[in-house]
Amino acid sequence: MRLGRKNNKINKVKQKNIQNVLIVAKQNKVGLKSAKKLENLLKDKVTQINFDRSTALRLRKIGHSIRKFNGDLIITLGGDGTFLWTAHKTDVPILPVKLEGQGFLCSCSFKQLLDSIDRILKKDYTIKERMRLKCSKIVKGKIHKYISMRRGDYPLALNEIAFGRKRPSKILNVEFKIDGVVFDMIGDGVMFSTPSGSTAYSSSAGGAMIDPSIEVISIIPLYPFFSKIKPMVVPKDKKIEISIAGGDCALVIDGHGGEYVKKNSTFLIEAATPVKIVTLFEQNFYEKVKKGLMA
Amino acid sequence: MRLGRKNNKINKVKQKNIQNVLIVAKQNKVGLKSAKKLENLLKDKVTQINFDRSTALRLRKIGHSIRKFNGDLIITLGGDGTFLWTAHKTDVPILPVKLEGQGFLCSCSFKQLLDSIDRILKKDYTIKERMRLKCSKIVKGKIHKYISMRRGDYPLALNEIAFGRKRPSKILNVEFKIDGVVFDMIGDGVMFSTPSGSTAYSSSAGGAMIDPSIEVISIIPLYPFFSKIKPMVVPKDKKIEISIAGGDCALVIDGHGGEYVKKNSTFLIEAATPVKIVTLFEQNFYEKVKKGLMA
Repeated sequence: MRLGRKNNKINKVKQKNIQNVLIVAKQNKVGLKSAKKLENLLKDKVTQINFDRSTALRLRKIGHSIRKFNGDLIITLGGDGTFLWTAHKTDVPILPVKLEGQGFLCSCSFKQLLDSIDRILKKDYTIKERMRLKCSKIVKGKIHKYISMRRGDYPLALNEIAFGRKRPSKILNVEFKIDGVVFDMIGDGVMFSTPSGSTAYSSSAGGAMIDPSIEVISIIPLYPFFSKIKPMVVPKDKKIEISIAGGDCALVIDGHGGEYVKKNSTFLIEAATPVKIVTLFEQNFYEKVKKGLMA
Repeated sequence: MRLGRKNNKINKVKQKNIQNVLIVAKQNKVGLKSAKKLENLLKDKVTQINFDRSTALRLRKIGHSIRKFNGDLIITLGGDGTFLWTAHKTDVPILPVKLEGQGFLCSCSFKQLLDSIDRILKKDYTIKERMRLKCSKIVKGKIHKYISMRRGDYPLALNEIAFGRKRPSKILNVEFKIDGVVFDMIGDGVMFSTPSGSTAYSSSAGGAMIDPSIEVISIIPLYPFFSKIKPMVVPKDKKIEISIAGGDCALVIDGHGGEYVKKNSTFLIEAATPVKIVTLFEQNFYEKVKKGLMA
């Protein structure tokens, strides 16, 4: 595989078989039906099949926490959304399967999964690592890794961390700092994207498409008002501080949930541990980009 | 120095003194006056002072070829243009001095040069390497590194290689290939930029500003017509093939000269040997970007 030859560690392991699997399905008819089908197929082949809490609830089974799962493999059934939602919470290798919707990050279709099930169980696959971003709140000079004790840690972003307007009618006053240099802007907000995210929201906002083997952080101003700040690409090891000087701001991570940000809050954006993606077939980034462009 | 800690080799050498210097000055009054001033200052301090052919002609001296110069140091007096014009032709370390105009790539002012002359002569400086791009013509599957026998090699681009419209009224039909995947577009052309070039023409054309410690090639479509092709950032080791399917095209390298490109010509764009920039003072890329944004 050409892509990621340099930066992404690729492991080809064939020895140990898969024994403990967690299935995460999209919360709709297709997702749940596929989950049941996959369970039937795996039943006699692995020791343990778990479902995440949401999927289990719908299937009237006992659910398992994604964060606490430390088995061999997680299979997500859905699209990029289901995969991202799972990738936020785990370091266990994930096989993202596309059922419907956008599947830019998915490594196979459901048919391919069924056809390749024996290869998967024998660990006859490669693992690609994709960079993630971490967001922490800075309160009185100290780093807080969680939103609140109740809601737990900030999810690790595989695509992007966006500070955007909470109220559509109000403008934001944003300030971010790299290497001690402060950039300030007024506008809809600012986004920090990984190379994986560079083909997603980041691209719509004017960011460049970045080959995922290049480990960098993209900073993209969102509709800046009379500002000369342009998209920037900075090395992975930079720590970026961001604060909202004025305006009602919402923090959105990979398009999921997020929280409302109080005025003068400061956050730290930095690279986090990568997510491990199970890959069965050779994939050419530029082919995917081209297909995406033609869609 | 933070910038380039990882990728840019920085050498601090103090042993050998500078003995053989080449001066390249901007072809105007300020440039030539500064060249004479610098010559007077260096006269008793180094063994040999040379001038490039253009500067020498104006000063009524015997000129020296920049390409053939293999002394210790080249000092350019002018702005980014004079430096780029010199950087196209040499691997000898260059000290780019700003006299006037844009000096984003220059590492000191003329006053700073005069004040620091003893430091320079004792080699008390750091050398930063900046990536360059190479353009070669492909004719019948063979690579040609020169424009023509008469005009010599293609200059090595420190900023960008642009394939643009020759005639303002005609549109171009461009095709480029990465990892075997062909992207085709219609528009004003396409540009390939280094991280150094990312704050220059590339930025005006919608490319991201890229920290020079990240060694990558940026591809920027120039006013694409009904195309979804967006700016792309690809690893340094990619070889990109580009051909002009239709339209009258001009090839411009770092804003200098270039040549007219015939229909169906194919070129190869790839990373070349870096240029060595002599740096006397710590420089923060983000501070320079901010200053540039405010200008």
